Amino acid sequence: MKKITVMGGGTGTFVTLSGLKQFPVDLGVIVNMMDSGGSTGRLRVQLGVLPPGDIRQCFVALSEAPDLWRKLFLYRFENGDLGGHNFGNIFLSALEKVSENYDEVLKTVAYVLKTKGTVLPVTYEKTQLCAEYENGKIVQGEGNIDENVLENSRIKKAFLEPSVSANTNAINRILESDMIVVGPGDLYTSIIPLLLVEGIAEALRKTPAKLVYVVNLMTKSGQTNDYGVLDHVRDLERYIGRRLDSVVVHHGKIESSIVKWYTSHHEKPVKDDILNDERVIRSEVADNTIVLANKSDALARSILRHDSDKLAAVLVQLIEKI
Amino acid sequence: MKKITVMGGGTGTFVTLSGLKQFPVDLGVIVNMMDSGGSTGRLRVQLGVLPPGDIRQCFVALSEAPDLWRKLFLYRFENGDLGGHNFGNIFLSALEKVSENYDEVLKTVAYVLKTKGTVLPVTYEKTQLCAEYENGKIVQGEGNIDENVLENSRIKKAFLEPSVSANTNAINRILESDMIVVGPGDLYTSIIPLLLVEGIAEALRKTPAKLVYVVNLMTKSGQTNDYGVLDHVRDLERYIGRRLDSVVVHHGKIESSIVKWYTSHHEKPVKDDILNDERVIRSEVADNTIVLANKSDALARSILRHDSDKLAAVLVQLIEKI
Repeated sequence: MKKITVMGGGTGTFVTLSGLKQFPVDLGVIVNMMDSGGSTGRLRVQLGVLPPGDIRQCFVALSEAPDLWRKLFLYRFENGDLGGHNFGNIFLSALEKVSENYDEVLKTVAYVLKTKGTVLPVTYEKTQLCAEYENGKIVQGEGNIDENVLENSRIKKAFLEPSVSANTNAINRILESDMIVVGPGDLYTSIIPLLLVEGIAEALRKTPAKLVYVVNLMTKSGQTNDYGVLDHVRDLERYIGRRLDSVVVHHGKIESSIVKWYTSHHEKPVKDDILNDERVIRSEVADNTIVLANKSDALARSILRHDSDKLAAVLVQLIEKI
Repeated sequence: MKKITVMGGGTGTFVTLSGLKQFPVDLGVIVNMMDSGGSTGRLRVQLGVLPPGDIRQCFVALSEAPDLWRKLFLYRFENGDLGGHNFGNIFLSALEKVSENYDEVLKTVAYVLKTKGTVLPVTYEKTQLCAEYENGKIVQGEGNIDENVLENSRIKKAFLEPSVSANTNAINRILESDMIVVGPGDLYTSIIPLLLVEGIAEALRKTPAKLVYVVNLMTKSGQTNDYGVLDHVRDLERYIGRRLDSVVVHHGKIESSIVKWYTSHHEKPVKDDILNDERVIRSEVADNTIVLANKSDALARSILRHDSDKLAAVLVQLIEKI
C-alpha cells in the first residue's frame, strides 16, 4: 500500500484528507502546531496546552466513527463561559492535562474517533510563528498574521520564535513516504510554518517521495496579495530547498458570486501564470457549492474550497504513476 | 443476578456505586436531575442543558474504562474561560447539543466510559428544587438551598417548580428491582428531590423491592441541623409514604480532627437515636481517611464519607438475604 503524507493543518488539509481516506492508501498527516487564533489561541494562553485546533480537524477528517462523534468534535459552543470554544479543542486540552505525554493524547483521540491513518504533530514543542514584511514590520503569532489582512507589503521572511525541533515520527514518515501532498492551505500560516521546524525541510530534500503541491484557489489578503501560481511555487520551493515534482492547479470556472465575495475581502483567484512546465496538472478541482460561512466550523474560514472527491481523484492518479 | 438500584446523585452515590460495582449484581442508578450549583448550574443556565454533574459522577463511578478516562471525566479546568468547569460536564453538555435525544447521550457516554450498569435520570424534564422553611422563607434552586447553610429553621416542605414526570425507565427499574438503596447523600438536596418527581414515590410504594436507607454520617448545616437518625428516617418515610425495610447506621469512631472540621461548619455526627428497631444495621462504614477538600472533584464536597468497600459489604449481605 502506498504511503501518502499530507502536510498542512487548516480547511485545505481537512478537504484533502477527507478525499484521500476513501482510497486504499497508507494515509498520514503532519500537522501545523502554530495556530494561535480564536478558541485555540485562548486555550494555548489560558491552559498552556499545545494548539488543539488543527490536530482536531485532522482527526475528524480521518474519522470513521459514527457521525455523532464527528458532529461532537466540530461542535462550537455559542453562549456563556464556553462561548466560541469548540468541543474538540476542549477535549484535546483536557486530555493533554490528564495524559502522561502527547502520544497518549493522540492515541486516545484516535481510539475515540476511530481514525483511519496517522496524525503527527510537526513538533511537540511550543513556538510562535513570526512574519517579517518587506516594509520592515514584524508580526508575532499565527493568529495576528492571519488577521493582518490589510497589510500591503509582502512577507519577506517567516520564522519561528523560539526555533523548535521536529517530531521524530514526522521526520521518519516523510523519509518513508511514496508521495507527499503539500496544500492547499494558507501559504504563510498553514504551510510554510511546517517547513520552519528544524529537520522538516531537510527531510523533504532527502526523501525519495514525490512532492506534490496543490495550489490555493484564491489569494489571501495580507499574505499572498496578487500572488499567481508562480509566486506560490517560488516561495514554497525557497522554504523547502527542493524542486516540486507536481503542481495541481485548478482549471475551470469559479462562480461569479463567490469571486464577488472574495473581491470584497481584497482577495481574488490565483492567476494561472505557470507556462510550459510539465509538472503542472490542470484539472477542475474547485467545489463551487456556495457555503454559508460559519455553517460548519471545519470549513468556516473559506467559502470556496477544493472538492475533496475531485482533488483526491487527481492525487490518486499521481499515486498510481509512482 | 439480583437487581439493585441506587437512588441519589452526589458523593454518597459515587461511593455506593463504586463499592457495589465490584459484585456480580445487576446494578442501576436513578439520578437526581435538580443540581443547580457550580459548573452544572452555569451550564444549565447558559446552554439550556439538563444538569450534567450528577449524571457524570454516576457514569464515572460505574466506569470500567482505563483510568485515563475516569481522570478525564473528573478533570476540572483551573484557569481562563473554562475555569471551574468540569470536563465531564462539558462533554455531556456538548453531546446533548448534538444528539437526537437524551437516551443517545446516555448511550454514548456509557460506551466511552465502558459503564457497568444502568444510569437513569429520574426525569428528562427541566425543573428547580424549592424549599419552604418553617419560618415561612422559600428558597428556589438546589444550589441556593445547598448554600443556605446559616438557615436555622427546618425545612417544612420541599417541592419542584414546575412539577415533572418520572422517566418511565426509572419507574420500571424501581418496580423490577430486588433491592433499592437510598442514600447516603444530602437529605434535602440529593435524596428527597428524587421522591418529588411524579411517579417515583408511588413506584417505591408498589415495588416488592427491599428498601434500604444508608443514613448520613454528618448533619448538613441549613438542611438537617441537629437531625438524629430518627429525624432522617421520619422525613424520608414521609416523602416516600412507605416504611423502610433496613436502615444502615455507622457504628464506630470518627476522627476527632474530622469532627472538628465539621464543628467549624456548624455540622456534627448524626446521633444514633433509633432504639429497639430491628430494621437497623449498625456497622463501621465510615472512611476515616483524611481527605484534602478539592483533591478530587468527585469527593470534594465532603471530607468524611462512607468507605465504599465496607458499605458495599453490608449491602451485599442484605442482598444475599433476599
